Amino acid sequence: MSPVVVLLSGGLDSAVTLAAALRGDHARSAPREAFALSIDYGQRHRHELTAAQRVARQLGAREHRTVRIDLRAFGGSALTADIDVPKDRPAHDIARGVPITYVPARNLIFLSLATAWAEVLGAQEVHVGVNAVDYSGYPDCRREFIDSFQRTANLATQAGTEGRAIRIVTPLIDLSKADIIRLGHECRADLSLTHSCYDPVIRNDHVLACGRCDSCAIRREGFRAAGVPDPTEYAGA
Amino acid sequence: MSPVVVLLSGGLDSAVTLAAALRGDHARSAPREAFALSIDYGQRHRHELTAAQRVARQLGAREHRTVRIDLRAFGGSALTADIDVPKDRPAHDIARGVPITYVPARNLIFLSLATAWAEVLGAQEVHVGVNAVDYSGYPDCRREFIDSFQRTANLATQAGTEGRAIRIVTPLIDLSKADIIRLGHECRADLSLTHSCYDPVIRNDHVLACGRCDSCAIRREGFRAAGVPDPTEYAGA
Repeated sequence: MSPVVVLLSGGLDSAVTLAAALRGDHARSAPREAFALSIDYGQRHRHELTAAQRVARQLGAREHRTVRIDLRAFGGSALTADIDVPKDRPAHDIARGVPITYVPARNLIFLSLATAWAEVLGAQEVHVGVNAVDYSGYPDCRREFIDSFQRTANLATQAGTEGRAIRIVTPLIDLSKADIIRLGHECRADLSLTHSCYDPVIRNDHVLACGRCDSCAIRREGFRAAGVPDPTEYAGA
Repeated sequence: MSPVVVLLSGGLDSAVTLAAALRGDHARSAPREAFALSIDYGQRHRHELTAAQRVARQLGAREHRTVRIDLRAFGGSALTADIDVPKDRPAHDIARGVPITYVPARNLIFLSLATAWAEVLGAQEVHVGVNAVDYSGYPDCRREFIDSFQRTANLATQAGTEGRAIRIVTPLIDLSKADIIRLGHECRADLSLTHSCYDPVIRNDHVLACGRCDSCAIRREGFRAAGVPDPTEYAGA
């Protein structure tokens, strides 16, 4: 079994993706050796990178690398430029349109980097925790994009042109946040280690989730719907 | 006319691509405002980045940015790992197979970054000096890859999904090195500012081309075939 590369942001979805890859998620694949890749892109919520380290260690990734690329050089997003993160938006607003937290071409860039590492490692799968259900506003989380990326990646690489094609695996793409949380639970991922908040609050050297950005709202509602106790420490609580 | 983003390595091909975009290469497009993007990826021949600055200034790019991303984190190429650059290879060897100077997924990564900047700028074209004639071993220089990348980039981005599609423009893709050199001459690109050598020699603080790597061999032969005096300073000469 060739190893797999897993994109690991430190958020909930990528942690569950890594846990499922390592366990060999039943219907999907056998247990795999996983190389976790995080990207330090100058994100406002850099705490997620610390979370990624903890998650990789807890779950037992074979190796965890963080590559730096400063997307603040381009800006254009509330996550990489001096633009306010929206707060307290109702659910129907969150679901509509491309949000200001969209980072131009982010998944295109991240999957390209993961493809590069996969090619060097001889890995034939890249796992990514994109999800098209709860947060449909990001164009680069849709299956159409993922399928097209896979074709392009195989045309771009020596591996792809020499018959060692790379597959982009998206175990969460059709799951609700509640389903993802349940799957994480099943795979013994410690979700208290993950970080989702776009705009965390630091209090006495302690990182708290704001509880009000879109990402907190979706996470909170996911735990509620899954019937799993929410381990997140919120600033407002 | 929307501006364009041009990938500028500091080599000959990308300099001619920038010159052609700024002039508005006759059959291809009207004169454009050009934003030049260079990538510092930990390449062995970092001198090309200094060359890129000189080229952007000489040709009059509206802006020139260099983004850092250390692909040595992955290795796997003679340009980013401790692997010798091949020397003195005969032309028929250079033309065959994927060379050890291939950098895994490089053009996939670079075009993804250029797409991100284009989206933020509202630019609808990314120009790249890939060429499938002289050096056919790089899978990510073929038209099939470029066409597939364009489709993927438009699925990945807000621009693409909202009808401001991005086009990947490859003015050199079918030209020989001699044709490229002639085009550069026509466009008044000062080719003496460009750097092609993969393994330059420093002599008295002066950067000289080795004259023996594949890139030097192709460049040298291109000037000869174009009937244009070669301004390159070679170490062996």
